[in-house]
Amino acid sequence: MNTFETPIRVGSDAPRIARAALTRLMEPADLPGLALVRAAGPVEALAFIRGSAAGSPELERAMSAVLADAGVPRWPGLADALTRWRPRVGDLAPERDLAMIGRLGGTLLIPEDDAWPAALGDLELAAPIALWLRGRLRELPPLERCVAVVGSRDSTAYGANVAGEVAHGLVGRGFTVISGGAYGIDAHAHRGALGGNPGRWPATVAIMAGGLDRFYPAGNEELLRAVADAGALVAEVPPGTNPTRYRFLQRNRLIAALAAATVVVEARWRSGALNTAHHADALSRPVGAVPGSVYSANSAGCHRILREGSAVCVTDVAEVAELAGAAGSNLAAEPVGAAARHDGLAVEDLLLMDALPVASVTTPQKLCSVAGLGLPAVLAGLGRLEVMGLAERGGAGWRRKR
Amino acid sequence: MNTFETPIRVGSDAPRIARAALTRLMEPADLPGLALVRAAGPVEALAFIRGSAAGSPELERAMSAVLADAGVPRWPGLADALTRWRPRVGDLAPERDLAMIGRLGGTLLIPEDDAWPAALGDLELAAPIALWLRGRLRELPPLERCVAVVGSRDSTAYGANVAGEVAHGLVGRGFTVISGGAYGIDAHAHRGALGGNPGRWPATVAIMAGGLDRFYPAGNEELLRAVADAGALVAEVPPGTNPTRYRFLQRNRLIAALAAATVVVEARWRSGALNTAHHADALSRPVGAVPGSVYSANSAGCHRILREGSAVCVTDVAEVAELAGAAGSNLAAEPVGAAARHDGLAVEDLLLMDALPVASVTTPQKLCSVAGLGLPAVLAGLGRLEVMGLAERGGAGWRRKR
Repeated sequence: MNTFETPIRVGSDAPRIARAALTRLMEPADLPGLALVRAAGPVEALAFIRGSAAGSPELERAMSAVLADAGVPRWPGLADALTRWRPRVGDLAPERDLAMIGRLGGTLLIPEDDAWPAALGDLELAAPIALWLRGRLRELPPLERCVAVVGSRDSTAYGANVAGEVAHGLVGRGFTVISGGAYGIDAHAHRGALGGNPGRWPATVAIMAGGLDRFYPAGNEELLRAVADAGALVAEVPPGTNPTRYRFLQRNRLIAALAAATVVVEARWRSGALNTAHHADALSRPVGAVPGSVYSANSAGCHRILREGSAVCVTDVAEVAELAGAAGSNLAAEPVGAAARHDGLAVEDLLLMDALPVASVTTPQKLCSVAGLGLPAVLAGLGRLEVMGLAERGGAGWRRKR
Repeated sequence: MNTFETPIRVGSDAPRIARAALTRLMEPADLPGLALVRAAGPVEALAFIRGSAAGSPELERAMSAVLADAGVPRWPGLADALTRWRPRVGDLAPERDLAMIGRLGGTLLIPEDDAWPAALGDLELAAPIALWLRGRLRELPPLERCVAVVGSRDSTAYGANVAGEVAHGLVGRGFTVISGGAYGIDAHAHRGALGGNPGRWPATVAIMAGGLDRFYPAGNEELLRAVADAGALVAEVPPGTNPTRYRFLQRNRLIAALAAATVVVEARWRSGALNTAHHADALSRPVGAVPGSVYSANSAGCHRILREGSAVCVTDVAEVAELAGAAGSNLAAEPVGAAARHDGLAVEDLLLMDALPVASVTTPQKLCSVAGLGLPAVLAGLGRLEVMGLAERGGAGWRRKR
């Protein structure tokens, strides 16, 4: 009975239609539901929930095995799960949903497609049933070219600047900026990425918590249309679905999984952006946090994850790119800054330079006492400092050269 | 010949006078010099440098052993070191120096004293020959009550505020604030500590790079007098010694060694404060760094050590105290902030709450479909949400309670 191991392919459209329907029946990350899809395949899973195929102890055992593999040793059982799914069967119209996303210029990506993002495999059983996609893209950029830039809705001018600059700089370096399409930091990240306007690769992608037939929040409609034109809007829920708190939290796992690194620009002590950061950390994806004023409540969440050691301090786009890059690539350059002329002097020459007067001149013998050095060291050191332009002869002795 | 192992005590004042002299002959952290003092004892070491005692292959071997223990396998030898020390012999007047520090209301602490800070032992061979002390204190507070608050001279208003508040709060919690007496962050740390005015314990101690007969920098004279009145000024160099670049760098190791934790409030990418932080890190003392704007060059050094992982992010006095405290004591309280009423809800109740309408009412059957839950889960969840004040009955159904 390997039907439960291998998905049945009843024609090329059947799995897509079944998965379209399953995204409406099951909430994101419904683990028993995902176990059913994995054990029976999408077409059989849908037929079973609709009541047109019978369950069996074998199916339930196969699901239990999948759940146990995913670290869920006990679950209420298939009958209990059916009470969650069956009330929505009457709402199903997957062909209508697929037609609608087509009219919107979009598509439904399913795991059976070559373009299915391999990165979602890291979510294991919690990988989405399918991804609704709307916009210019027909597939998402590869993981290593994607960086998530996220943060809270109530951003400050500081956070808005940093988000915009980092996103703009990332696009300039060939990355795609992933964010959540919300007000505040998310919007500034998308806008900064759009301003980078690369043309040759997708600037930005928004992962949404609700259906892609509507733009949410409404105030971001113009921005989200621009994001779709330059990249894509993505959701695991079908058209017509409201973004709920639960769906926002689950959406965050997709942002974390689809980006090579996640950067939190501003977040309060409790913030959805920290939830995204924790998802990324759990997936062993690097997390960056932008520091800010200790007096800004909007940076308290960033400081929290820095303090907890779950994020690395990032202060500019080079450091963010380094976080996202494979070891050795995209390495941030060290600021050169004000290297002083005396940098790198040996201790004895440093002692000697400290001992040299500026306004008058002094003898090597006197320098021995002031610097605490022997005469050979003083004479050799004066020669070195003269060559470096740090000391000069003047009249009967030596002085520091300005 | 265990003269080289055990210091000779020629009367109680002899080691103090000898060490007073040795602090003038030898620069701070002159490792061969410190090895000589350790191998021969201070009185013999001084006599030898003055030329009134003969050297020997055994002395040189004993010094080599001390140096090798300290990780210095090769050194130029005793004859070479003598050329550093002998030019200053003519300047020696240790009784005059001791009389001067006495007139200034101070003293010279030596390792032979019971009050010698045990924490300096962590510096191993680089521990100072002696400590010149000026002010109210006759000994330094124990390590676990001392926190160093340091930073760059060119502080911003932000750094000044943080330094002052942290220092003030530390004193309020029974700590002594150690800093370097310089302009900028150091001065704000000392001032903040003095404002805490505990009376019952020393508020603050300044570790200086030059002799304690002068106040350096001159613009801090009034502040440094107040620091001496409330605590102490400390230096390893004798009165009359200029603060040189080399002595500033060596002074930083004393700040790091005398404090249970070191906090860098503001520092540029290259900054002496980072040198103090590195000394603390090398001594396995915890280091904290205060985050700031990514646009402030004065915070770049703090972000650097956060990024390198050699410092912990600290944003207020509670977190600094936690850093300094023994494990489990002085723990910073988590900000309570805006705990939402729905925090801690189980997933099913969160789904249910998201599904509840606000403006109208709905039936449990309809909630099954919207929330994706079975009827038993909906009915049980409505009961729980009602008890929590999150849902209410209205007419023929249920709605979210505001």
